[in-house]
Amino acid sequence: MPPTGPNRHPPRPPASAADPIPFYGEHQAGIVTPAQDRLHFVSFDVVTENRAELDDLLQEWTAAAARMTRGQEAGVFGAVGGDREAPPDDTGEALGLPASGLTLTVGFGGSLFDDRFGLASRRPAALADLPHLPGDALVKDISGGDLCVQACAHDPQVAVHAIRNLARIGFGRVSVRWTQLGFGRTSSTSRSQATARNLMGFKDGTANLKLEDVALLRDHLWVAPGDGPGWMAGGSYLVTRKIRMLIETWDRAPLSEQEQIFGRDKGEGAPLGRKAEFDTIDFAAKGPDGQALIKDDAHVRLAHPSNNGGARLLRRGYNYVDGSDGLGRLDAGLFFMAYQRDPHRQFVTVQRSLAETDSLNEYIRHVSSALFACPPGVRDAGDYWGRALFA
Amino acid sequence: MPPTGPNRHPPRPPASAADPIPFYGEHQAGIVTPAQDRLHFVSFDVVTENRAELDDLLQEWTAAAARMTRGQEAGVFGAVGGDREAPPDDTGEALGLPASGLTLTVGFGGSLFDDRFGLASRRPAALADLPHLPGDALVKDISGGDLCVQACAHDPQVAVHAIRNLARIGFGRVSVRWTQLGFGRTSSTSRSQATARNLMGFKDGTANLKLEDVALLRDHLWVAPGDGPGWMAGGSYLVTRKIRMLIETWDRAPLSEQEQIFGRDKGEGAPLGRKAEFDTIDFAAKGPDGQALIKDDAHVRLAHPSNNGGARLLRRGYNYVDGSDGLGRLDAGLFFMAYQRDPHRQFVTVQRSLAETDSLNEYIRHVSSALFACPPGVRDAGDYWGRALFA
Repeated sequence: MPPTGPNRHPPRPPASAADPIPFYGEHQAGIVTPAQDRLHFVSFDVVTENRAELDDLLQEWTAAAARMTRGQEAGVFGAVGGDREAPPDDTGEALGLPASGLTLTVGFGGSLFDDRFGLASRRPAALADLPHLPGDALVKDISGGDLCVQACAHDPQVAVHAIRNLARIGFGRVSVRWTQLGFGRTSSTSRSQATARNLMGFKDGTANLKLEDVALLRDHLWVAPGDGPGWMAGGSYLVTRKIRMLIETWDRAPLSEQEQIFGRDKGEGAPLGRKAEFDTIDFAAKGPDGQALIKDDAHVRLAHPSNNGGARLLRRGYNYVDGSDGLGRLDAGLFFMAYQRDPHRQFVTVQRSLAETDSLNEYIRHVSSALFACPPGVRDAGDYWGRALFA
Repeated sequence: MPPTGPNRHPPRPPASAADPIPFYGEHQAGIVTPAQDRLHFVSFDVVTENRAELDDLLQEWTAAAARMTRGQEAGVFGAVGGDREAPPDDTGEALGLPASGLTLTVGFGGSLFDDRFGLASRRPAALADLPHLPGDALVKDISGGDLCVQACAHDPQVAVHAIRNLARIGFGRVSVRWTQLGFGRTSSTSRSQATARNLMGFKDGTANLKLEDVALLRDHLWVAPGDGPGWMAGGSYLVTRKIRMLIETWDRAPLSEQEQIFGRDKGEGAPLGRKAEFDTIDFAAKGPDGQALIKDDAHVRLAHPSNNGGARLLRRGYNYVDGSDGLGRLDAGLFFMAYQRDPHRQFVTVQRSLAETDSLNEYIRHVSSALFACPPGVRDAGDYWGRALFA
């Protein structure tokens, strides 16, 4: 699908981190939007079995999201209709704070397409459940979900406020299944951003798809009209994986081992054998001992498109720290998020390569997983999230 | 104690949120320092029983803290002494990030003064365990601890990096007992800062002690030489309380009830019956119905110094969201932190007033509690955290 409509030019980063990001457009904001610093992600179970109630909720959410992404309250703050005996239509903690680059991005999980809402026939093939992958240690309670909302912003109070108000609006219709906070965007999504570091201390996302790669995004990111049901055209599929890092073990690994595992040097982020972060990787290079500089089980080799039938992802992960685990260790790692046109051809291919042989596996555990179909953007105030799905 | 030494003038906020905050001084930084936006707090159990190892650790921590608060790595990044086969002396995730206003503030819990380290005779009376207070629902695993470190910064990655590296340095000598991340400083500690809002949507900390209140800080914040053991002179006592908010219940309470509970209006933060946030509270004011505008069980009345024998606190709390609770609710609230000269005369007095009658209690639960003696500042590179305690 050639890029058309309001988003045909890559959006530019806002002039300041306080500014709003446009909510309406061909695609949802929060996918190629230059990754903001903070994340609050929520997965909901739908608790109503009434399709009209779900449809209404998505309309109410869309209206609130359009307001909040402009830096306004979710509804009318204060006395609703002059009635101080009613609960406020906004919870108040973001009063006075600017839009802070807030984006809200919605997705539909496979479980939404069961027989509750008559949507079974509209489930895209690409939304088939992800297969079990080697090494998965998934916890069901923090995996999956009927609906998700990704809130990204430069101010965590703004991201938290947005999710909290969507949950409030959804009371009685949805229930929070799991949430995740993150910080320190570990995958830049624009060449205007420096590559950030993950909690293993390495630059993460050097080879990520970027919003400036318009042709690559068309091929690898956006769902085209012929790809499946029409309601997903212009949308994208989101895979989330909570990847716990065994921080304390990693911190005692020698620097040379850490660098061999990634296939890059830790300080600069250059591929081993090269000088600078963005230097082309030479997978054939050998060291003075005649051994490959980048080992067969190095992360950078296994994850590379050349090893995965050309599969590429637009990653938007965040670092997380969820406190400690009761055994004296930090509960920390990477909340991996990746958008793509077909998760089975893309994420599953790459993750299968990694799960089988990546030398990094000794230091990480995949503890949650989810897949969501993120519909195209809301075009204007008369449109809403999922309108084409419910039409 | 009259203010003397390098901190005798109130520190000014840094010119930019990226700048360093001086580490050395009469008092520890991170107490009156204008509250930074992000918190990573950690409580450690000491696992060595060797006093010399504990003393060594505090010296190593001090050296690393002095470096990290300047925006440097915890140790030499990369190949330690040219040895790429050794683990790096810094974990790397803050490489390239500025100091970001990082402060690291250490405290000693009462349990450190048991018979393991020969410190029992040096325990200050003010460090006696806090009494059980009405309504306490404390979880032992996330309460107390032998040592704490409060990391505050404008960038969460910088705060997390600092705590993670102190934990790494302490491996085998300390074990993480519990940690807490926070954001959106809910108590400004300087008149240069606007009052932030807690997750109930109200401005929080309007009447807080501020760094500009030099005489009040002398009376209410800093331990004076005659107050107890000399090693604490120039220090302060820190009380932490994790206060979970019953967010979903609160969000369904009428605006008028919310405002009566706090005794302030929600939008402006003015005391009921007045116009502006900093207007003097008129506790005697009556409405047209002859009833007190600020009710007997309003939070602002019960917490006021006039109701607590003049007790005042320097609060530095942060909002937290720890995900969800498995019952469809957000696990969120306030991580309350308050510094003071004598916690039994100050915090306990105020909290007892609140715990007995505060109408807010219906919507909150105190789930963790800790008390730490935070020693005076590290004077220079020859000094270290707790030197006077171990002397």
